Amino acid sequence: MAGQEVANKRVVLKRYVTGFPGADDMEVVTGTARVAVPPGSTAMVLKNLYVSCDPYMRGRMTKHERPSYVPDFVVGEVLENFGVCKVIASGHQDFKVGDLVWGMTGWEEYTLIHNPESFFKINHPELPLSYYTGVLGMPGLTAWAGFFDVGKPKKGDNVFVSAASGAVGQLVGQFAKLTGCYVVGSAGSDEKVNLLKTKFGFDEAFNYKKEQDLDAALRRYFPEGIDIYFENVGGSTLEAVLPNMRIHGRIPTCGMISQYNLEEPEGVHNLFEIIAKRLRMEGFMVFDYYGQYHKFEQEMAGYLKAGKIAYVEDIAEGLEKAPEALIGLFTGRNVGKQLVAIARE
Amino acid sequence: MAGQEVANKRVVLKRYVTGFPGADDMEVVTGTARVAVPPGSTAMVLKNLYVSCDPYMRGRMTKHERPSYVPDFVVGEVLENFGVCKVIASGHQDFKVGDLVWGMTGWEEYTLIHNPESFFKINHPELPLSYYTGVLGMPGLTAWAGFFDVGKPKKGDNVFVSAASGAVGQLVGQFAKLTGCYVVGSAGSDEKVNLLKTKFGFDEAFNYKKEQDLDAALRRYFPEGIDIYFENVGGSTLEAVLPNMRIHGRIPTCGMISQYNLEEPEGVHNLFEIIAKRLRMEGFMVFDYYGQYHKFEQEMAGYLKAGKIAYVEDIAEGLEKAPEALIGLFTGRNVGKQLVAIARE
Repeated sequence: MAGQEVANKRVVLKRYVTGFPGADDMEVVTGTARVAVPPGSTAMVLKNLYVSCDPYMRGRMTKHERPSYVPDFVVGEVLENFGVCKVIASGHQDFKVGDLVWGMTGWEEYTLIHNPESFFKINHPELPLSYYTGVLGMPGLTAWAGFFDVGKPKKGDNVFVSAASGAVGQLVGQFAKLTGCYVVGSAGSDEKVNLLKTKFGFDEAFNYKKEQDLDAALRRYFPEGIDIYFENVGGSTLEAVLPNMRIHGRIPTCGMISQYNLEEPEGVHNLFEIIAKRLRMEGFMVFDYYGQYHKFEQEMAGYLKAGKIAYVEDIAEGLEKAPEALIGLFTGRNVGKQLVAIARE
Repeated sequence: MAGQEVANKRVVLKRYVTGFPGADDMEVVTGTARVAVPPGSTAMVLKNLYVSCDPYMRGRMTKHERPSYVPDFVVGEVLENFGVCKVIASGHQDFKVGDLVWGMTGWEEYTLIHNPESFFKINHPELPLSYYTGVLGMPGLTAWAGFFDVGKPKKGDNVFVSAASGAVGQLVGQFAKLTGCYVVGSAGSDEKVNLLKTKFGFDEAFNYKKEQDLDAALRRYFPEGIDIYFENVGGSTLEAVLPNMRIHGRIPTCGMISQYNLEEPEGVHNLFEIIAKRLRMEGFMVFDYYGQYHKFEQEMAGYLKAGKIAYVEDIAEGLEKAPEALIGLFTGRNVGKQLVAIARE
């Protein structure tokens, strides 16, 4: 079908968002795409199979005065995020038709990619391809880098993970167990709490919505304090965690999902704990670790095949469902890693 | 005079403090002290020459529900802090009468010390002894450890120091210049700002009380962003600094003096910057570095003798002045390192 024009369904941003986003801030439209690369270019055309829904996308739906760490989406243009794709046309010597890759693609059926170098080849197609939006992709590398490189865990450490059943949290908890740590996770429903304990092997887990006093809950689960808090949530959760940290504790700071939809983020009032406890709070970004991706992929594929890491995903079928799936991240509707299946081949 | 009983003037805590402390929360009283150690003990008796006034003491004037990193003062009992002292009686083999030492002592003329091991010998009595409450003592080691070990400076880094004319800040700025950094300091009076530029060699300095918009001031002084923010202040200063940090910036977190007298500390709302900029915010405590003290003392004595480090202190004469001197830290009355001279020999 090289060269032909095909229908191309796409999810575009309808307006910039302030406060809580809705599915109707996006729109599913149908245009066309050319399944060919311009003569002489090193571009490639991808057929998108799965795209990932990630909390960080919320930031891109707002127009920023100062440039953010990732570009804002553009009203009227297609959303983009990490996805699993098949190469269907290529002018690049490293990518040929039929290759399976993952990287930053459009929320649409077909995407013309001008920088194929930013994509990773998929070396373990014997595992579910959708895993490359999660456990074998960006969230997996995020959990691995944040826990091991930033968190510097030691056997016996006490680890707390918020948003623990999400794409990153479920992996952090399992890495902690593989390292010989005691790990407790928080999540927003009893179903998720159950998953943490029965499927992912957390030592303890609790539903934060049922805790009147998060500080008291943390004192109960961590009478000797927390060595590593893997921060996915921010705001009042961080405020409750800080007095429960142990001396020389570490806070790998991955996300602050509780804050993304607030007009004014919550203030954290007890940062003096950082001094009193000599804490290290350190932000990180997955793209600083891309150079280690294939090492990670190898290690993680090994864990998955050996049954040492369990993984749960929540798949929305079809681009029409993509806007709702994205919004569901912020209401906690998803159970496990949220993604969208666009095509199964 | 060994064994005799002598008059002993002392500064005691009159009541626990909430909010802004006053000199009348302390009281100067006169009791007696015995210039002798109990037979068979390894204690020593010190004649206190200089005692240091440090912002962290504010925390000790409040009764804490959970144990803090240092013990609360006790109502009716003598305050304590780092001081320079002469041994006048000793049962400890490592300390003999006439030795000059520094360490945690009482705000009084004579103090019986049960743990002489916690004291450091003074190896450079040819320098002003009062320096051992500052540039050669706890604040000096604090600045050195925080800037070099926590801040990990590189030549060419952009460095911002708050409370820059204080005991720690003035040294951090000079360490930054010795390392080849660009350094800007903030302080609370034009006199202090002038000192920063003319005496301590800061590249730029400003009076934060005259800046309507601290964020704008920081953008002006750091158009390319801040690599190291040496945090002495906290609260709204930290909030203004965070968006001005550069990617992979570091925040050695030493103190938060703007917050110590507030009933409710200010909230910091933009901690997401820690993720977006991949910042490392790390608290530290000087006592984790005591093992490196003599290395530091040697290095600093060399700088002082070579004229590479300038140092300004603000000396209150006599214990009667001690309560006001301590309170003055929180109104910014002191110019340079605040201490109290109890006796000159």
